[in-house]
Amino acid sequence: MATRKSEAIWTGNLQQGAGTMKLASGLYEGPFTFASRFEEGAGTNPEELIGAAHAGCYSMFLSAILSNDGHVPGRVHTTATVHLGRVDGAPTITAIDLVCQANVPGIDEATFLTYAERAKAGCPVSKALAAVPEIRLMATLVNG
Amino acid sequence: MATRKSEAIWTGNLQQGAGTMKLASGLYEGPFTFASRFEEGAGTNPEELIGAAHAGCYSMFLSAILSNDGHVPGRVHTTATVHLGRVDGAPTITAIDLVCQANVPGIDEATFLTYAERAKAGCPVSKALAAVPEIRLMATLVNG
Repeated sequence: MATRKSEAIWTGNLQQGAGTMKLASGLYEGPFTFASRFEEGAGTNPEELIGAAHAGCYSMFLSAILSNDGHVPGRVHTTATVHLGRVDGAPTITAIDLVCQANVPGIDEATFLTYAERAKAGCPVSKALAAVPEIRLMATLVNG
Repeated sequence: MATRKSEAIWTGNLQQGAGTMKLASGLYEGPFTFASRFEEGAGTNPEELIGAAHAGCYSMFLSAILSNDGHVPGRVHTTATVHLGRVDGAPTITAIDLVCQANVPGIDEATFLTYAERAKAGCPVSKALAAVPEIRLMATLVNG
């Protein structure tokens, strides 16, 4: 269906070195460092890219399966919080929290939640990230 | 160690709808559509974000383990090509190709390749993406 070739460069060691990550489309190239990844330094980091990808894929997939059954959403807003911790001393993405608020005319909350859970299990990025120890979802219907 | 909260919005159905993905740092917010994801339309897509994250994490991790043993790299350049296909009719990230070219003074190629393989197995994003059916690596030492 599609292939996307993104890239990155790192120069130097871990603590004093620096890098950039660049999207295949060329729309964004961002700097990263030890501080922007493991601390709160300025710059980007792989985890925020993973989070944006997961939030985007989840929102699109949820909209697709709802629409497919006639429930076209007005708006699906999802945040993805990616937790980077240590497991056995090694840096590890330990959990991702998806929080979704959706406006979907003419659907009841229980039905909506079945779609929200299906999207969590079935969206391509969720499937790719299935090795992350915990992917949690809190979904809310915010009609009206 | 760190938490990163990125987000996305999708409005409307799959084919005519549209979305945006935004990084936690606020450094980038990009539009995506059916065409930018599954075809070659203008805009971003989750897969190119995944690719940039993987290329970045791999490059940083490889630099870290090399440096840790006294082999500080001059430059590590990695591309990550993410393949989006279909498995049993469902959109699926089927493979990721990592291609790495590294300048590392004073190391021989065989030793370098053992580090390159360790980084493929051990970098946090590789571990998170372990459910992707194939992650392939071609690493080359380009000293001189």
